[in-house]
This record gives sequence, structure tokens and C-alpha cells, in this order.
Amino acid sequence: MRDVRAALRQQRIETPSWAYANSGTRFKVFAQAGVPRNPEEKIADAGVVHRLTGVAPTVALHIPWDKVDDYAALAKYAADQGVGIGAINANVFQDDDYKLGSVTNPDPAVRRKATDHLLECVDIMDATGSRDLKLWFSDGTNYPGQDSIRARQDRLAEALREVYDRLGDDQRMLLEYKLFEPAFYTTDVPDWGTSYAHCIELGPKATVCIDTGHHAPGTNIEFIVAFLLRAGKLGAFDFNSRFYADDDLMVGAADPFQLFRIMHEIVSADALGEDAGIAFMLDQCHNIEPKIPAIIRSVMNVQEATAKALLVDADALAAAQRAGDVLGANAALMDAYNTDVRPLLRELREEMGLDPDPMAAYARSGYAEKIVAERVGGEQAGWGA
Amino acid sequence: MRDVRAALRQQRIETPSWAYANSGTRFKVFAQAGVPRNPEEKIADAGVVHRLTGVAPTVALHIPWDKVDDYAALAKYAADQGVGIGAINANVFQDDDYKLGSVTNPDPAVRRKATDHLLECVDIMDATGSRDLKLWFSDGTNYPGQDSIRARQDRLAEALREVYDRLGDDQRMLLEYKLFEPAFYTTDVPDWGTSYAHCIELGPKATVCIDTGHHAPGTNIEFIVAFLLRAGKLGAFDFNSRFYADDDLMVGAADPFQLFRIMHEIVSADALGEDAGIAFMLDQCHNIEPKIPAIIRSVMNVQEATAKALLVDADALAAAQRAGDVLGANAALMDAYNTDVRPLLRELREEMGLDPDPMAAYARSGYAEKIVAERVGGEQAGWGA
Amino acid sequence: MRDVRAALRQQRIETPSWAYANSGTRFKVFAQAGVPRNPEEKIADAGVVHRLTGVAPTVALHIPWDKVDDYAALAKYAADQGVGIGAINANVFQDDDYKLGSVTNPDPAVRRKATDHLLECVDIMDATGSRDLKLWFSDGTNYPGQDSIRARQDRLAEALREVYDRLGDDQRMLLEYKLFEPAFYTTDVPDWGTSYAHCIELGPKATVCIDTGHHAPGTNIEFIVAFLLRAGKLGAFDFNSRFYADDDLMVGAADPFQLFRIMHEIVSADALGEDAGIAFMLDQCHNIEPKIPAIIRSVMNVQEATAKALLVDADALAAAQRAGDVLGANAALMDAYNTDVRPLLRELREEMGLDPDPMAAYARSGYAEKIVAERVGGEQAGWGA
Amino acid sequence: MRDVRAALRQQRIETPSWAYANSGTRFKVFAQAGVPRNPEEKIADAGVVHRLTGVAPTVALHIPWDKVDDYAALAKYAADQGVGIGAINANVFQDDDYKLGSVTNPDPAVRRKATDHLLECVDIMDATGSRDLKLWFSDGTNYPGQDSIRARQDRLAEALREVYDRLGDDQRMLLEYKLFEPAFYTTDVPDWGTSYAHCIELGPKATVCIDTGHHAPGTNIEFIVAFLLRAGKLGAFDFNSRFYADDDLMVGAADPFQLFRIMHEIVSADALGEDAGIAFMLDQCHNIEPKIPAIIRSVMNVQEATAKALLVDADALAAAQRAGDVLGANAALMDAYNTDVRPLLRELREEMGLDPDPMAAYARSGYAEKIVAERVGGEQAGWGA
Repeated sequence: MRDVRAALRQQRIETPSWAYANSGTRFKVFAQAGVPRNPEEKIADAGVVHRLTGVAPTVALHIPWDKVDDYAALAKYAADQGVGIGAINANVFQDDDYKLGSVTNPDPAVRRKATDHLLECVDIMDATGSRDLKLWFSDGTNYPGQDSIRARQDRLAEALREVYDRLGDDQRMLLEYKLFEPAFYTTDVPDWGTSYAHCIELGPKATVCIDTGHHAPGTNIEFIVAFLLRAGKLGAFDFNSRFYADDDLMVGAADPFQLFRIMHEIVSADALGEDAGIAFMLDQCHNIEPKIPAIIRSVMNVQEATAKALLVDADALAAAQRAGDVLGANAALMDAYNTDVRPLLRELREEMGLDPDPMAAYARSGYAEKIVAERVGGEQAGWGA
Repeated sequence: MRDVRAALRQQRIETPSWAYANSGTRFKVFAQAGVPRNPEEKIADAGVVHRLTGVAPTVALHIPWDKVDDYAALAKYAADQGVGIGAINANVFQDDDYKLGSVTNPDPAVRRKATDHLLECVDIMDATGSRDLKLWFSDGTNYPGQDSIRARQDRLAEALREVYDRLGDDQRMLLEYKLFEPAFYTTDVPDWGTSYAHCIELGPKATVCIDTGHHAPGTNIEFIVAFLLRAGKLGAFDFNSRFYADDDLMVGAADPFQLFRIMHEIVSADALGEDAGIAFMLDQCHNIEPKIPAIIRSVMNVQEATAKALLVDADALAAAQRAGDVLGANAALMDAYNTDVRPLLRELREEMGLDPDPMAAYARSGYAEKIVAERVGGEQAGWGA
Repeated sequence: MRDVRAALRQQRIETPSWAYANSGTRFKVFAQAGVPRNPEEKIADAGVVHRLTGVAPTVALHIPWDKVDDYAALAKYAADQGVGIGAINANVFQDDDYKLGSVTNPDPAVRRKATDHLLECVDIMDATGSRDLKLWFSDGTNYPGQDSIRARQDRLAEALREVYDRLGDDQRMLLEYKLFEPAFYTTDVPDWGTSYAHCIELGPKATVCIDTGHHAPGTNIEFIVAFLLRAGKLGAFDFNSRFYADDDLMVGAADPFQLFRIMHEIVSADALGEDAGIAFMLDQCHNIEPKIPAIIRSVMNVQEATAKALLVDADALAAAQRAGDVLGANAALMDAYNTDVRPLLRELREEMGLDPDPMAAYARSGYAEKIVAERVGGEQAGWGA
Repeated sequence: MRDVRAALRQQRIETPSWAYANSGTRFKVFAQAGVPRNPEEKIADAGVVHRLTGVAPTVALHIPWDKVDDYAALAKYAADQGVGIGAINANVFQDDDYKLGSVTNPDPAVRRKATDHLLECVDIMDATGSRDLKLWFSDGTNYPGQDSIRARQDRLAEALREVYDRLGDDQRMLLEYKLFEPAFYTTDVPDWGTSYAHCIELGPKATVCIDTGHHAPGTNIEFIVAFLLRAGKLGAFDFNSRFYADDDLMVGAADPFQLFRIMHEIVSADALGEDAGIAFMLDQCHNIEPKIPAIIRSVMNVQEATAKALLVDADALAAAQRAGDVLGANAALMDAYNTDVRPLLRELREEMGLDPDPMAAYARSGYAEKIVAERVGGEQAGWGA
């Protein structure tokens, strides 16, 4: 039990600045009172989440949504809130120029502009001290024939190479993939294989980012996790959950067993700790539920799945596997999954000087009421700002 | 060949006012120059499509996107453009009140408001002379437990009943279904079975609307078409196409063979003509392609699929089916599908006094340049207006 | 807690005779030592499962796999083993005549033969005292055009009517649906809507059977459960689980949270007890794992999901739902799901005079060794016999 | 038009010996009269297909289904039938030993046996002069925890390395992938990324085989084709078609537009000819339709898709793509797809001295009647023999 607690105590989950802001679907964004109006307010909210959970010490930024004049000052502000700046997320999908793609656009001028933005993000990383540049490309096509699939790969490779070469010694590139949306016929990085192949070509600083919501129906995500861990190419997770497509629900909400299986692969490969170099990040939307509580709940969901994974009796599991005991091996895994780990986590939080129930502590804190009262006027942050 | 041409000449495809406006994904709406700024300009564009294709004589409205003070005047304006007003589409998904649902909302006040909007749409139908009220509900939940699935069905049934009872003698209700989005866990009308069951309960004026993009992967849409035709409960199509989810691409773009199979069921049941009471409507988005040409192309795609379906040798097909000749029956169908019907349709257009190539005719017409020049200032229409 | 235990104590889960026999995929059937060679041996195995779990008092038969000369004698034999005969499952998919369908075959002679088999199954029900006739049709087509979708519905309706009219006063028809396999283009009863529509037409003795493995990806099964419960048309479950298609894995193995959500709908509608008339049956294959332990585990999985569903604080849930408290309502559900109910079930079993750990009790019992030793010679039972 | 005909005349499509034999689903194999009883009769049937189509000059073997004592004699027999021996397909999924896997089995003795079989297949290649060893592994697990995903990859890599090192200078390994079935939880080579990663590690003689039926719903296969062509790692196709899972229907039957898009990528990359090193093979089942006609039809379907792909106006397409003309580029592609290429292919066949209608020619040939009359007694070939 000692090791389980130590592992849980050292767990690190990064929250995304944009999850504190408004978001929605193409049909409607339901604005919420108290939502941040600038990067500082998002960071302040992230600080609250970390103070209550103890395991969310960094916050990811999204450029240009979190664009500021002085990133060093922003990092200082974050430190004052008790959190650090995490990954820098590039955004090359919201300018009118990007209608037919960013780094894969048929127009070289648009590609130049997009690549320059990626390079600018590395500049920001230099200023914030961020290790990771997260790249997600909405690039793709909507209709058969619209563009050459192969030519777009050539353009993608060229842009990635330029950005890769700009990375500092301690900086990394995380290449995310996504099956579809907003592109509806081809996507230029649609699956882990495509991301992996580019990362292999680029070199050791390029690794794959798995967004748990970005797969075709029936895809076995823990297989991908295990495969990339074996290949040394798993760099990060964007956690969220989904019933259908990229629904971006709270991680663990749609299929808690799947999250457990993913964390089981992580624990099996001894890849939970910081030295394994895997960034565990949330990337989700809170369209109808309140933002901060949703993020606290998400952090707790990851903790619970991790605790269960840590409780798997690895020796019993391995013995059953070696013996070809199908039901016995399955039972060894399920035994951990079926355990109620909430008491353990409550105790752990108390050991860490935290409230055992972060949700209740937040509700009691008055923070929700405070931001509703204070954040009046100005423009609420959202996906477009 | 005579009957094929007659059938094609009498075909009626309704275009949707909102397809002429801006649309996009949750990530970005790419605005296009020349897009309409009000219902009249949308109707004018619909008039152009009908003048060029000869088979798109009506345009559907979306309330409140197409809200005007005087609907009779709008109908008159439409007539001047050579088109009629088609179905009235209710919209109960864009007010802040509808965050947790419209007619299925746990709050009775919100349900009242939503139902009142539906009733208002029937008032508008009275004014425009529209036959069809199309109902699509975005209602549903995002998280397990969020609301009672059964209670929401009760509320849905109650609202539908009230609206049904308000319908005039020659008016109908079309109940659309959709697997998911914007609701991500449950949707209150997720499949044809749900829509069908409510329609059966309501009575003969309630029929099912099949949106070709609203199904789970692997769903056999032509089966649903055939089943509803047999049951006398198919009221309408919302045509579009999809590779993944509700991608809303041009009908026939993603899977032209599927569109042919759907039209084959229609033709087999002798349900193409107006007296069969099936409304053939487009419901799609043109996010990156120009609007009017995309709609012309869509109309042509439906025509081509229909022409092929009309060319199926029904006797040969039936004989092979009766004989259990699997390959022979399949070949009878494929023989029609593999025929190039474009020459036939070009001839038909010439017979109808139209340009044989509507796409080229539009390009030559100068209309695109004209609307770009004229539609300056004001606010472009989109999904929110 | 009292009611929870009472409900669990009265739970009834029916096991299928064919799950004790060999099964596999089209690629290979891996035979297992000790597998039954006749209906009696299957029933004996079912008796063992009931003695160890206390909640599996009936066993379903499959005709002709379980064909015997004297069904009354078979029922007597079952009673001696401590179990009753449950549903009778018709089989109209393994004769060469059924290559192009059974009751929907274009050839009337084949339809006659198939319908006669269904009627014969009702005769068997009379002899065994079974209440339920379970109908699953593999009927469908592999290629577009192969047969008329509508004509096949007509033939289906005709056969169902004839069988329905033959049912005794206390007998029922359960109409199962399945998306695909073994038919690969159309299936004649592919979804719950089709089954529901036929049942409505037939009358009150016809109800829908939900096989949890028979849906398109992304289908929300608990929605269907809730809908059919509200409509009074849910007759039975065929429990199993799946990752991909009809994988027929042990119920609860692939998505235990889904099974819980399904049981939550059952409990919410107060439909767990026998008077609700819902048959909870297993229908699964054990291709690589030992049969009897797999069935015991499956029964336990259903028990665990049911126990969790019974622990949901219905008042707290309803209050949060009424208040539109998305996270609170979800938490009320998850709180029950995250509870470890295994201690409760162990206690319950002890109260019932059972071993608290049925898996261990079976392993200790020597039954596995006994049947391996005794069941030598003869032909092992499988899907074909 | 000259080049199109030349390309079509040189097209090479390999047929699989097992497609001439009986096959079915787990529910039932419907045997057909006249089906081959040994490898020679399968090869004789393949010879008929080649004589009628002119583009199917080789037949793939499946070991041990096509095991003979003297492979050189078999190759000689094939030559007498006018065909050559194509790829050798290994089979490590039908021995009882392989219940928990072949080369990934936890038991080293089973792994040894499986690898030895693969090496034996290379011996056979030496005897037959075959270039390609096709490897498909059914290996995987059915339940979470059953075995270590990573350990199985290690075992897979080890076996592949041993076999790779055994290959002769002119021999290749084709590594096929498949989403699921017969394994239902994990599959050891589930997607193109996994196959690609292993092939990269192995070296230039290892390339990916794309079976068009082996993907998750929504997978864009032509993207994979384009990506692998760009990477120089596309070795072969196993053609068939599917509506749902691995339905193994005739290629082009379920989605002819998809087949065209795939062939468009091939043609665009100038990879149709033999020097491109891509093997175009059929791998499909004919469960209810007659075997030889189904294969002839399949060959014709590939020809038609290829002809359409060759008709794409590459300059017009590229110009529209460069100009960002979404509808224009799509139209350039669709223009070719909508062309009826059957007259062209009929002419081509006449130029080649063939009957313009191979289906009719086969029907007239009397071969079907001949084999039904002659192939009496003995055991029909199927998936198990």
C-alpha cells in the first residue's frame, strides 16, 4: 500500500486553460457566469484546482487564445497562483486563411504563415520555460479529390521538420492525431500510425500525443498506449471521454473501465512517474456543466483509475497469463477495478493536508460565487479568444 | 425511356434557406462573400437554383433564423422569385433556456416556452401555406444520470400531442431523429424507431423524417426507407452525406451508391411523385465550398441517383430475386447504377428549356459576382441568425 | 439495505444450454474436454451453476440442438437437477434450405418449412411448460438487389402472425433483433424499431428481446431499455458483452458501466421482479475460456451490476435531476457504481446458504475433473448439434 | 485512351485458392455442388477465371489448406492451366495449440511450432517460385488482462525477425492487419500502424498488406494507401468489400466509390504496373453466391474501378487542387467515376481475343455443369481443408 500512495502523491495532471472558458457545439455555446475573461483568470482557476486536488500543478496554454505581451510575467503570475505553465498548444485553425489547411494548405504563403506561428510558439516556450509544444492540425479535406493526400503529407513533413529543428535541447514536440472533425473526408494526421511515422522520421524529440476522444469506433486505445510505450514514442495524453465522436466529456465519464485499462498499461510499463516523460493532460469541454467542478471531478477520475491500476496484483496477473488461465488473468485485473478506491484517496488527501472531498471543499469555498460577482463586464474567454 | 423522363421532369427537391447562409464547425465558421443577409436574399438564391435546375421549386424556412414580420409578404416575395415556401423548421436549441433541453427540459417553464415556439411555427405555416412542420430536437443529456430517460419521453410525448392537435387538416408533422450531437450521452429522439413509435401514437399526420446523416455507423438506411414506406410512415428526407458523423456534406458526395439504393426503394414503392406525400429536402452545410454551386450540384446528384433508380429493369430484378439468383439480381441493380445518366439528364434539361449544364450556366450567369458586389454591409446570415 | 438484499435474493438469471457446449468463430472451434454431449448433460451443468449461485433457476433450450423425443421427461430430468426449462429458442438458420432465408425466403416452400418449425417449438413449449418462444432470424441478404426488402417484411409479418395466433394464453413471443451477421447487407430484423413495430402489430403477447451485443457502434442501449419499458414492450434480455460486433463475450466483461446503466433503468422502472415479466437471460459463447466458470462469472457480473443499481439513491438522483444539477445527478449515479458490492453479495450468499465465492466453490467441487473423466466418447455438443 | 487501354491490358489480379472452396459464417457453411476437393481443382478453376478475364494470371495458395507433397509438380500443373502460383499464405490459426495465439502465444513451444510453420512456407515459396509470403495472424486476446499486450509484441517481433532473415533475395513478407475477429479484445496486429512499425524495423523486404475489409468503421482506406505509397511500404492488397465488419463480400460490391478512390491513389502514384511491386489480390468468401462467377465479377469490378481511375484528368484535377477550387477538384474526380467504362472494357477484351462479357461466356461454357457432374465423392475443400 505504501508504494501505491507514493505513486498517487506524485501524480501530475495538467489542466488546460481553455477548459475554464466557454465552449460548446456548432449549434450553440451556452455561456456561463464567472467564466474567465483573460489568461490570468484562467490560470487563477487552475490554481484553485491544484490547491484542492494537490495533483494538478501545471496549466497548458493555447496560442493565440492565451496570447499576452509578456509571457515571463504570465509565468510569474502562474507561480503566484501555485501553478506552472505547461504545454504550449499551437492553433492554426481559426484564421480565415486556414480554410483549406494550415501547414498542408496548397498555398505556400498560408503554409509559411502557419509554420511561423508554430515557430512563435517555440519562442513562447522559451519564455515560459515550457517543455512541450503540442501540435494538433485540423488540416484535411471535405471532398474526395479536393487535394492530393500525398502532397499534403509532403507539406506536413516539411513544416514539422522546420519546427523540430527549432526546438531547444530540452524541448519536445507532441504530435496529436484525430480521426475526423473539422475535416470530414481526409484528415492529415488521422491516426496514431501517421503521427508515429512522422515522429520516427523527425527524431527523438518528437512523440505521439494520444487524445482519448480521437479514435474510430472500436479502436482499442490501450493497445496503442502499450505499443507506443514499447516503442518509446508515447509523449502525452489528452484526456477526455466520449460516447460517439470527439464528445470531449469529462475523462472517465463515458467508460471508466477503459480509463482504468489505459492506466494499467501505464503502470505496467512503470511510466507513471515524471522521469518517464509522459505528460498527462486534460483536454475537454464543459458545455453544460460548471467548469471548475468539472475539472476537479476529472482530476479525481484520473486519480481513481490510477489508484485501481496501482492495486493490480502484478504477480498474480503475470502468473495467470503465463499459465494461459484466461478467467484467472481477467479476474486479477477486475479485482483491482472493482475495488472502491475512494477511501484510499480520501486518506491520501488528508495526508497531503488537503480536504478529503475536493468537490465539497470547492462548493464550500465561495470561489464560485466570488467569480460570478467579480467577473462582470469584458469579454468571456472561449474557443475563439 | 418515356416514363423515366416524365418522372425526372416532375421530380421536386426542396432546398433549405440555411444552406445559402454561413455555416461551419465548432472550431470555425469561414464566412463567404456574397452570403445572404436576410430571408429574402436566401429566397432569391433559392430562386436561382430553381431557375437553373428546374426541379427545386420550394425553399424551406428555419424559425427564428428566417423570422419576418409578414410571412404572407415573404411568400409573395418567394413567388416573385419563382419558388414557394416549403417546410417550416422549428428551432428550439439556441436560446440559453434550452441548455438542458427544450420540450424535454426538467423545468416546465422551459417546456412551455419551447412548445409555444412550435405552435408559433404552425401559425407561420398558416400564413405561408406550408404543409409540413419539421421538428428536430437537440434535446438529450451529456452525462449518465443527468436526467430520467423515461421522464423525458413523457414530456416529449406531451409536447408533440399538443402541437399535433394544433395542426390543420392539410398540415403534417415531420419528426426527425438523430443519433447524437449536440447531446452526447442520450438523445431524446435518437433513431427511427423512437420517431416511428411517437408518430404511431400521434396519428396519421405525424410521419418520420429521415436525415441521411443521422445514423450510427453501419446503419442500413435503405432498409429504414423500405420499412417506413411499407408502414406508410415515411414523410420526408433531409438529404446530405457523411463519412463519419453528421458531416452534412453534399448529398451523394460521400456514398453515391447508397443514395442510389435509397432512391431505388423510393422508385420500387412508386413513391417518387407528389401524391406519395414524401418531401425530398436537402439539409446540408457548405462550410468550405461556395453555397449556390454546392446546392446546384446536390440537386443534380439527387437527379442522377433518381435517374439510375428509374433505369433499373424491375422485371429482370424481380425474376432474379424470385429465382434466388444472387448474382443475377445484384447485376440487375448494378447495371442501372453503372449507367452514365448524365447525357439523359442533359437532354431532359434541354427539353425543359434549361441549360444542359447548370453548373456552367451558373458560373456564366454573373450572379456570384453580383451578390458579392451587392451584399456588402449588414450581417451575414448563419446558423445563429 | 434490507430491500436491496431482498431484490438480489429474488433475482432470476436464465442460462442457455448452448453456452455449455462448444462454440467458436468461423475460423476455428476449439473443443474443450468435458463438454456436454446431449441436452441432459447441458442441463446438469446448468444445475451446477444454479446450486452455486442460487439465482439461475432455469435453462433455455435451443431446438433442434436440444431436440429429444420426450420433452416432459426432459423437464422432469431438469427438475431433478434443481432447474426448470426456460425459453425455447427456435433455430431456422442451419438447414441447407435456409441459405436465402427462412420465413422471409423467396421460396414459399422454405417459408412453410420454417414456420412449421416455429409452430413445433410452441408444441415443445406446451410439453415443457415454457412461457417464452424466442425468435431470432438470421434472415437477410448479402448483396444489394438480392431480394426485395419490403417483400421480405411482408413474409416475415405473415409468419409471425401465424405463430402468434398459435400461442397459448400464458405464452409469449420474444422477437430478437440484430444489426448484421450472418447476413451482411440487409437483415430482416436489424434493430429494435423493426422488432417493436412487428410486436405492436401482433399484439400483447409479442415483446422485444434485447441482445446486448446486437447493436451498431455507438448505440445507447439503456435508452432502448427505458423506451421499451415505458411502452410496455420489453420482454427479455439476451445478455453478453462485446467490444466490436456480436463478440458474445461474458456479460459485463467489455463494459461493466454499460451493464450498470442498463440495470439502473430496470431498477428505476421497478422491473426487476418476476411480475414485471422481463426474462433476464444469458446468450453468450465461451470460445477460449472454460464454460461453467465463465457462466458463473457472468451470473455474478449481472448480480454486481444489479446490486450497484439497487444502491443508487433514487431521491438524491431525482432531486439533482429536477434541479438541473448535471454534475450532482451524475455523481449520484457514479456513487453507486463506484461502490464495491462484492462484500454485500458474499454476505447475501451466506444468508442463502451458499458459498460466498461461487468461483472458488466450483474449483473445489471436483465437478470439472469429473466431467472431463466421464464425458468421453460420443459427440460433443456445439452450435451444430 | 491508348495509355488507359495499355494499363488495363497489363493489369494483374491474383485470385485466392480458398475462394473457390466452401466458406461461411460461424452459424453455417452452405456447401455448393462442384466445389473443388483438392488444390489441383482449385487451380483449375483459377485457370478458367484467367482464360475468361485475361487479367488473373496467378493464384494464391493457403498452407496447409493447399498442402501437397510436391510443390514443383503443383506449379507445373498450374502452368498447364495457364496460371502461376502467387503468394503463399501461412495459416497459424487452426490447430488446437493456437487457442491462445500462435507466434504471440505465452507458451514458447507453441511459438516455436508456429514460427516453424512460417519457415516451412518459405520453403514452399522456394519450390513454387513465389515471391510473397503473406502473414495474417489471428493472434490476440478476448478479455482484458488475458495476456500482456507488450509481451505479445515482443514475441511477434522475434518471430517476424526469424522469418524475415530466412527470406531469399527476391522474396518478400507481406504483413496483414485486422481490427478484430477472431480475437475480440486485443488483436496483435490490429491496424496499419502496427504493421508499418514492424515492417520498418524488419527492413525493405517487409511491407504492409491492406485488406480492405479489416478496418474500424469510418477508416479512410485511401489515406492509408496514399500514406504507404509515399513511404514505399505498400506491398499488397487483399481486396474484398464490407458493409459492417470483415464481411468478405465481392470487392466493389458494398462501396464501389471507395474502390475507385483507392485505385485513384494507385494510379496517381503510378503504382499500377508490375514494377511498382504491389500485389493486387482478392481475398473474399462466397457464402451464398456461386464461386467462379463471383470471382469473375470481382475481377471485373476491380477492372472497372481501375479504368475509371485511369480516366481521371490528372491535369485538370491538379489545377483545381492548386487553385483551391473545392467543387472543381471534386468534379474532376467524379467526372471519371460517373463514366460508364463497361463499353471500353468490352472493347479491350475483344482486342485481347476474349469474350467481351466474361460472365455470359462462363455461363455458356458448360464448366459449371461439368464440375458439378465430375466433382462427386471425396471431401469438398473449405476453410478447414
